[in-house]
Amino acid sequence: MASPTETGIGTPQPNGEAPVGVDPMLSTLTGESSVRGPGRIAFIGAGSIGRPMAERLIDCGRDLIVCDPSPTVRAHFADLGCPTTDMPGNCVDAGIVIFMVANDAQLKSAATGPSGLIPAIDPSSAPILLIMSTVLPETVLEVAAEAASRQAHTIDAPVSGGSLKARNGTLSIMASGEPADIDAVRPVLDQLASVTFECGILGNGQKTKILNNLVGVANLFLFAETMHVAQLLGMDLQRLADVMEQSSGRNNGTKDWTARKGLFRWNSEDLAAVRSVVDVTRKDLHHALMLAERAGAATPLLRALVQGHDETPYTDVLMRWRALASEVGGTGGRSGATISNEHKGSCDDDRVP
Amino acid sequence: MASPTETGIGTPQPNGEAPVGVDPMLSTLTGESSVRGPGRIAFIGAGSIGRPMAERLIDCGRDLIVCDPSPTVRAHFADLGCPTTDMPGNCVDAGIVIFMVANDAQLKSAATGPSGLIPAIDPSSAPILLIMSTVLPETVLEVAAEAASRQAHTIDAPVSGGSLKARNGTLSIMASGEPADIDAVRPVLDQLASVTFECGILGNGQKTKILNNLVGVANLFLFAETMHVAQLLGMDLQRLADVMEQSSGRNNGTKDWTARKGLFRWNSEDLAAVRSVVDVTRKDLHHALMLAERAGAATPLLRALVQGHDETPYTDVLMRWRALASEVGGTGGRSGATISNEHKGSCDDDRVP
Repeated sequence: MASPTETGIGTPQPNGEAPVGVDPMLSTLTGESSVRGPGRIAFIGAGSIGRPMAERLIDCGRDLIVCDPSPTVRAHFADLGCPTTDMPGNCVDAGIVIFMVANDAQLKSAATGPSGLIPAIDPSSAPILLIMSTVLPETVLEVAAEAASRQAHTIDAPVSGGSLKARNGTLSIMASGEPADIDAVRPVLDQLASVTFECGILGNGQKTKILNNLVGVANLFLFAETMHVAQLLGMDLQRLADVMEQSSGRNNGTKDWTARKGLFRWNSEDLAAVRSVVDVTRKDLHHALMLAERAGAATPLLRALVQGHDETPYTDVLMRWRALASEVGGTGGRSGATISNEHKGSCDDDRVP
Repeated sequence: MASPTETGIGTPQPNGEAPVGVDPMLSTLTGESSVRGPGRIAFIGAGSIGRPMAERLIDCGRDLIVCDPSPTVRAHFADLGCPTTDMPGNCVDAGIVIFMVANDAQLKSAATGPSGLIPAIDPSSAPILLIMSTVLPETVLEVAAEAASRQAHTIDAPVSGGSLKARNGTLSIMASGEPADIDAVRPVLDQLASVTFECGILGNGQKTKILNNLVGVANLFLFAETMHVAQLLGMDLQRLADVMEQSSGRNNGTKDWTARKGLFRWNSEDLAAVRSVVDVTRKDLHHALMLAERAGAATPLLRALVQGHDETPYTDVLMRWRALASEVGGTGGRSGATISNEHKGSCDDDRVP
């Protein structure tokens, strides 16, 4: 069972366990002493995405301490020879502290709560805080202000990509903060991600992720609805995706229809999988609407989308995605349909064998 | 003033003139006789997109007859040395008859009405009907059935792209019908478009365009809302577009942010320009919803979008697009922001100088 940490596409829902760092009475610290100095990385929140990220860092030879409220998760990392704790304050001696908890409340608790990291920091040897959870930008700024009072610097670096990319170190990271701080953690970021976007001042990483996900979530579900209609009409879906890829309907799903069908399959294996994706993407859209409202922006289509997505039954998504995942080709197409004229190559090159 | 024919992005709204072919009493035929045989092309509906398409064909040396209810439009083409008429039935002796009228009702009137084309066809020398308007697939099938009763074949070939692409012959065409018929008109299609997608059986061209536009319209307006929020937050919009281009937010607007700003500028010059785009895209979304309903597909996000787009005030769109068009760079970014790790090139290559 996953701990209540960052969820992602293809992963089960957070369960109901207590958030990290709430009750210092429960504190346990196993394995080696946490006092290991700047070479150590603390990983707070080893849930559905955090766990494979932490495993990846262990694979890369990193000296890790893992903090998670789930005994199962801690036992797993103990088996990997890794010290574990359920109290963020025990992570204070690492050089870098990664936060990969599920939401704003858990981040505040783990960072600034009574058994949290920041109250335990010694200003003469403060770690760098690396916030990789997806939270509101103002939460990052609040935590950073607390950290600064103890001479600790903060970087904002939310990730994109599912558990498989987390495990393989091929995530995308949207990092922001002081350039020198980003440079200091870059070797770690490079082990977790195949691309790190530098997004400017602290908080911009979250803003970039939220705004990207606004469009990304809309397209994920809207493109599925589109292909569902086409499927019922008996159209050749690969062909339609190829045309859209070169037209105004271009989106992240038209780049590789076979891969997109795989994503639909992976995320519709059971209702829990669908619920996980729908819930995390509802959170994404609500974050976007909050950001828009606080910026004073009118966003009527986003507002309509938020409501539409909130009201879409999980079973509807399950049905559509499963039908698309099992698609083996339409009937309405001309056999070996082609594109005439000089742009021919640019379409066929995108087709996946 | 444009005639009530196919509208497109960047073009004024259709005015209130009577639809093509309604009143045979008004029939006029100027210039040479229309009896010129299969080399001649008839062009019915020379409105905001049709007019530059017809001009393009004249530039290419085509022998054209132009049919439009607007005396101004007819005078324009007469000045270009082109025979004109306001009665589709007068186009019967052309080898190819292009329909570029504004909507389903105008198409039915021009094709099957009392002064329409089909009743005037001599089955022994029937033209090919080339429907380039955006209409419902069933309207294409209805017209094609009527045409077939006079031995005339029909091709469905709606276009994408604005008036500039129409004038330059760089539209995209989504063609469907019998392969031999498409082959017969291919030289004409190639003069109008830089790419022609062959979409299968008759009606699939319209289905493909409607489904593409579903996603395309959503992204056009949603991406503008997204960038509007980013602009109010003081972010670097070029940078954000670059990140989204490589992430789940990838869409047709992230491919080239400078070009997208140009599109926003072009379409927000005055309220009439905005109204034209909003109206034609509302029609697109309603077409998509009709197609979904007739296919028996549940499309909750599309339904929410239709309502949200219908209710968005023109002035809201005007304000947002103008603000984006005048954007000269954000303040929140690290100067010369970069992408680290091996994927660097693929982002910077997309940046427009």
